[in-house]
Order: sequence, then structure tokens, then C-alpha cells
Amino acid sequence: MSQAILAQALFANDAFYLAFNQGDMEAMESAWSQEQGILCLHPGWPLLTGRSAVLDSWREILSQPQTPIDLMEPTAHLAGNTVLVSCYEQLGATIMAASNLFVLENDQFRLFHHHAGPCANPPQRTRLASSPTNH
Amino acid sequence: MSQAILAQALFANDAFYLAFNQGDMEAMESAWSQEQGILCLHPGWPLLTGRSAVLDSWREILSQPQTPIDLMEPTAHLAGNTVLVSCYEQLGATIMAASNLFVLENDQFRLFHHHAGPCANPPQRTRLASSPTNH
Repeated sequence: MSQAILAQALFANDAFYLAFNQGDMEAMESAWSQEQGILCLHPGWPLLTGRSAVLDSWREILSQPQTPIDLMEPTAHLAGNTVLVSCYEQLGATIMAASNLFVLENDQFRLFHHHAGPCANPPQRTRLASSPTNH
Repeated sequence: MSQAILAQALFANDAFYLAFNQGDMEAMESAWSQEQGILCLHPGWPLLTGRSAVLDSWREILSQPQTPIDLMEPTAHLAGNTVLVSCYEQLGATIMAASNLFVLENDQFRLFHHHAGPCANPPQRTRLASSPTNH
């Protein structure tokens, strides 16, 4: 039961990054909670609160060319009846650490909070086949 | 009901920063969840998982002289049956943004995850009376 819940949250986390990588604003809107007051801390931004401010920020970001995010080491952690997914985001040569908190809405996990920022000693990419280098 | 829960989480958040400012490792241990696999992302550290790694990091940090953290704009947000407290941490001239996720254990909120890092456009300190400047 618990493992299935964690897998479901990891799937929602994948969908969030897929929406980003595909520049799909409709999928991005769907990835976030519609019933609760969401929050978002982009790297280099102040804290954004509320669905309007958070989704406006994603609309602005997705309207510009983006380096795709290569998701590394996503791990799901049950916290009460929510799931926190920790992961690293590789954007070109930069690796950020992210905390993504998911809540259940109508049996689907939706993003409640995204916090990404710089980190030290990020993991080394081991799946080189899926991560071509630019040398 | 909900307001009381949010106030209770803010109190637990205050206790966490008080433990830091007083270098009180016993209070720090008490601030964190004892039943769930906790996580911590200090600024400039890799992700730490598990009570042993997280509390060892705080023991190391508290064993050294620290600039006290002046807590700014703590705000509690109900997420399922957990509470996420967003806040800013002023350490001298540096201001970090932090996300602190609390879970209920025996009717007490305990920290499940702490993620702090650099932020842009931090809030301006308005309560100058409680924040003497060093000019």
C-alpha cells in the first residue's frame, strides 16, 4: 500500500518535470494542486504563494527557451498523508537540489510546494548513456 | 481548528530556531520527528536522509560558533495533515529562504524536512527595533 503510494507520487513528480521539459503549460497547471494554497521557490526568485502567482511564474518560464531538466535520484518519502519527493535537477552543467511536496486530490497526487536551489556535492551522473556530454 | 493547527506548527518552527540559536542539541533532537525518516538540505550541503545523518549534521553545526538566525515572515500552510512553514532566515547580512515540513506525532508537530538556501529579493526587515544594525 505504502509502496504504491510512493510510486504514485514519483509518477506525479515525473509528470511535473515532463511538463517543464515539453513546455506544456496545460500539463503544468494539472500537475499542481487546485484546492490548496500552493507555494513555489524557484532558484533566484522570492517565495511565490497562491495558484495565480505560482502558475504565472511557470507561464513566464515556459514561454522562454529552457535547458531541459534531467531528473536525478528522485526519492519519495511519506510524511503524514502527503509525499515529499527529493531529487536533483541537472540543467546542462548545473545541478540543483529540489524538494517537491505532493498532496492527494481525488486520488491523484498534485504538487503543493516546489523548492529548488543550489547544492553542494551533487550526485555523479552514472547513466551516461541517457546524458550525452557536450565535450 | 485549522488556525489552531497552524499556530501549533508555527510554535514548533519557533522552537526549532530557538534550539539552533541556543545551541541546544537536546531541544534540536526533540524538534525533529522520531518516527519517520527525516530529511535535511542545509545550504551548501548534499541532501541528508535519516535521523542519524540529519542529527549528526546539527551536532556538528551546533558544536561551532554560529551567527544567530533571525526568523522573518514565518507562514504556515496546511498540506494534507502536515504543515509546511515557509520563512526567511537572516544570518548577519545573509538572508536564506527556508521550507520546513512538520508532521504530527503524539499531538505535537515535529520537523520532517528542512530545506534552506539562497533566495532573491528577500523581504526587507521592518522590525528594526528587534534587529540592531551593525553600522
